[in-house]
Amino acid sequence: MGSEQEQKQVILKNYVEGVPTEYDLLLVKDAPVPTLQGQGEGAFLVKNLYLSCDPYMRGRMRDFHGSYIPPFRPGQVIEGFGVARVIESENPDFKPGDIVSGFTGWEEYSLIQPTGNSQLRKIYPDRDGIPPSYYLGLLGMPGFTAYAGFYEVCSPKHGDTVLVSAASGAVGQLVGQLAKLYGCYVVDLLKNKLGFDDAFNYKEEPDLDAALKRYFPQGIDIYFDNVGGAMLDAALPNMRIHGRVAICGMVSQNSLSSPQAVHNLFNLISKRVRMQGFLQSDFLHLFPHFLDDIISYYKQGKIVYVEDMNEGLQSASAAFAGLFSGKNVGKQVICVAKE
Amino acid sequence: MGSEQEQKQVILKNYVEGVPTEYDLLLVKDAPVPTLQGQGEGAFLVKNLYLSCDPYMRGRMRDFHGSYIPPFRPGQVIEGFGVARVIESENPDFKPGDIVSGFTGWEEYSLIQPTGNSQLRKIYPDRDGIPPSYYLGLLGMPGFTAYAGFYEVCSPKHGDTVLVSAASGAVGQLVGQLAKLYGCYVVDLLKNKLGFDDAFNYKEEPDLDAALKRYFPQGIDIYFDNVGGAMLDAALPNMRIHGRVAICGMVSQNSLSSPQAVHNLFNLISKRVRMQGFLQSDFLHLFPHFLDDIISYYKQGKIVYVEDMNEGLQSASAAFAGLFSGKNVGKQVICVAKE
Repeated sequence: MGSEQEQKQVILKNYVEGVPTEYDLLLVKDAPVPTLQGQGEGAFLVKNLYLSCDPYMRGRMRDFHGSYIPPFRPGQVIEGFGVARVIESENPDFKPGDIVSGFTGWEEYSLIQPTGNSQLRKIYPDRDGIPPSYYLGLLGMPGFTAYAGFYEVCSPKHGDTVLVSAASGAVGQLVGQLAKLYGCYVVDLLKNKLGFDDAFNYKEEPDLDAALKRYFPQGIDIYFDNVGGAMLDAALPNMRIHGRVAICGMVSQNSLSSPQAVHNLFNLISKRVRMQGFLQSDFLHLFPHFLDDIISYYKQGKIVYVEDMNEGLQSASAAFAGLFSGKNVGKQVICVAKE
Repeated sequence: MGSEQEQKQVILKNYVEGVPTEYDLLLVKDAPVPTLQGQGEGAFLVKNLYLSCDPYMRGRMRDFHGSYIPPFRPGQVIEGFGVARVIESENPDFKPGDIVSGFTGWEEYSLIQPTGNSQLRKIYPDRDGIPPSYYLGLLGMPGFTAYAGFYEVCSPKHGDTVLVSAASGAVGQLVGQLAKLYGCYVVDLLKNKLGFDDAFNYKEEPDLDAALKRYFPQGIDIYFDNVGGAMLDAALPNMRIHGRVAICGMVSQNSLSSPQAVHNLFNLISKRVRMQGFLQSDFLHLFPHFLDDIISYYKQGKIVYVEDMNEGLQSASAAFAGLFSGKNVGKQVICVAKE
């Protein structure tokens, strides 16, 4: 810790209307570094290494208290998933040097209270042979979203045709790879890097319906939807009989006070399509299986994971805003400190 | 048969654009009565007793050949589900006097070819103690749609809150009653007649969201959607966690070249709602169970069935068009001949 006892912090300026911009978050450089003095047993200090930018965080930037998670407070440091190193501890379960993952502040150093909601757990990147930041994506909430969504919601079958939207994102890239490993035919954006079968960029396609008919002449068995709106509307008439649509994220709708219309739901009937919204938190009993499976796949070289890494807290606000314009290619992470 | 050998027929004037009106169907009075002469073995003649008006028939009134059932031909008699009596037969399986149900023409007398697509089966209204016309509704395709949709698609649980739209229709009225028998709390239109728990008329509600919040303060577990559009959009934010939406019919969307928009699909995620389109034809293995169950319920007085019966083929075109303005209360049937 610096001798000045000051640190950088990212705070919410005010509640956000519409699509977040980098000006909704403010970097302060003179926030106090927390100390353990007077904190009592169980508290510990961490040095934040990596912070995760996730679209769900937009939901905490409005004055709405009915959600499963409370809103951020304007003027206060925001929080999210992070990977950190314990540097001082009054907690017997967390020793200096331990690497942890869970909720932490967007700041250099965070005070973790045993009564808080940080849900920090120890992780072992060296033992697992996994880059620490991957615990925010591949082995974190986004990866688990892909895992639970694909296996538990999409009801995949060998040979199914699979469309993944936002396949460059934190969730989509793993969905596509899991589908390939399952023996599905997968189309989206990242053909060369991730080995999918075909690819197109939905933002550059003037006629989504024609593109889908070109890439899926026999129709789509599984659409893993990360964006909603026009892409969902285009997918519906191209679903095959008994197709499945997993509704996940809808990042394109997240910020809109008047969400984009979907017109083609009547296709659900003639094609007998099942459309299922889900949250990974309903499947937490599968988390240990997820870790085992994905670590094993990764070590065998069967899956890769693409990160979009920004350096330093000063880059955090732009990185977060970039999620909503589709700027990131790969899981958006902020590196706070290199070790 | 009349000595003039002429009969009434309802023919399609031309392919229909938009919402069907009574002028899309034409009554002709001098169509020839078919005879068995020269038809060979297996053919038989029926006298039509009751004809069924069903919204799916709209789909056969356009020049589209990609459906599971071919379009009607302009200038030709239309067909649909009917109940008829065999009057002459060269078919050992169907004897004069037998009552049959299946596809028949909108005319007084129909020639049934053994190679045709009529799917006629013998029915036994006297033995079963069921009015013959009920084989078009309660014991026909609409009743089976309700049965398969409620038990197989909605995943009902005792105590679930259930919203049924178009609960005055051929399908909805049975869904609501099956849900009541299952121990659900059911809201819709036909409170007094069918014993549901509460009721409102969605066409008369200025604020559907407020109405739903009033009737379902704890939210909706099951929405059996027969209309789509605005009612579906209003239901989505009022679904409970892990709610189910069965998508059936969408009669309000059937005729629209540009279907109404649905904006609230993002609620599928936070509430983890499953939305499932279905066709009764995927569940035909359950048809014998359906007949047993429903005949038994009916005989025990546990369910009732409301018909909207029009008299005579001359009333057929208006009766059919009335389906699309919600004019019918109960299953719309045309009585062609009283016996």
